[in-house]
Amino acid sequence: MVILGIDPGLAIVGWGVLECVQGRFRVMGYGSIQTKAGLPVEERIKQIYESMNIIIDKYKPEVMAIEELFWNTNQKTGISVAEARGVILLAAHMKGLTINEYTPLQVKQAVVGYGRAEKKQVITMVTSILKLPKPPKPDDTADALAIAICQGHAGASPLSKYYKM
Amino acid sequence: MVILGIDPGLAIVGWGVLECVQGRFRVMGYGSIQTKAGLPVEERIKQIYESMNIIIDKYKPEVMAIEELFWNTNQKTGISVAEARGVILLAAHMKGLTINEYTPLQVKQAVVGYGRAEKKQVITMVTSILKLPKPPKPDDTADALAIAICQGHAGASPLSKYYKM
Repeated sequence: MVILGIDPGLAIVGWGVLECVQGRFRVMGYGSIQTKAGLPVEERIKQIYESMNIIIDKYKPEVMAIEELFWNTNQKTGISVAEARGVILLAAHMKGLTINEYTPLQVKQAVVGYGRAEKKQVITMVTSILKLPKPPKPDDTADALAIAICQGHAGASPLSKYYKM
Repeated sequence: MVILGIDPGLAIVGWGVLECVQGRFRVMGYGSIQTKAGLPVEERIKQIYESMNIIIDKYKPEVMAIEELFWNTNQKTGISVAEARGVILLAAHMKGLTINEYTPLQVKQAVVGYGRAEKKQVITMVTSILKLPKPPKPDDTADALAIAICQGHAGASPLSKYYKM
């Protein structure tokens, strides 16, 4: 199964694509979609939508795993991040992907084995599990790979019971 | 100038299209896009996106006027409304429309002449200004027409100074 992990955002969307066969991962690609702060929101979300289409067409994932959104204290950012997340969901759904959402707690549990793990631990574990030469940058990309790993574990039926929250 | 007014939402998107010539309005069409509560968010926003494309293709508006989003106390609703608003912005921008945002205060000021007017007054004034046979239903449709009127007033240069906030 090919999994697309997404860490949603307006300025930076982290993405990572993993092939998962019987709980083993093969890294197909990862990176980030970045949009410029000075542009209107509608232009930034259009760039995100078009980049999502390119990534999906290239790697042909069957599943998109995406982080669930929670309100932060910066409400202005929250609205535009949710608007960006809307076009990410649209792109994946239009291409026929199954969409699964995970909370940060579930992702940390799956990757580090501890739901309250720190960001650094998540990045270290992602780098180790996927045998990457160095930690992926920016952190959003590492987070996207963590979400894809979480989906891989949840989807591997013999293990799934350990990862249900 | 042909104006598309939008009251964004996930369950109901109100829309109204007005032709505005020298401060006079001609009603081209209005209605609401409604999506079912039981469907996944990605399916509901896809339906909104596709309906937006149909409306834009039919009426060929040059400008979309849309209500600015504010957080309400129901944060779960807020996220999905913002996701829906993201795909509305995407549809309009992909079709080359200019996008303008207005606050509820600006809309009420433009339509009723008083920024703290009640919803009923807005609906009554929309019905009267546009010489509609009866108040548009649901209220979201009336709100969308109010936003389009606000855009029409703001765009008519001799009047615009009265409507600037």
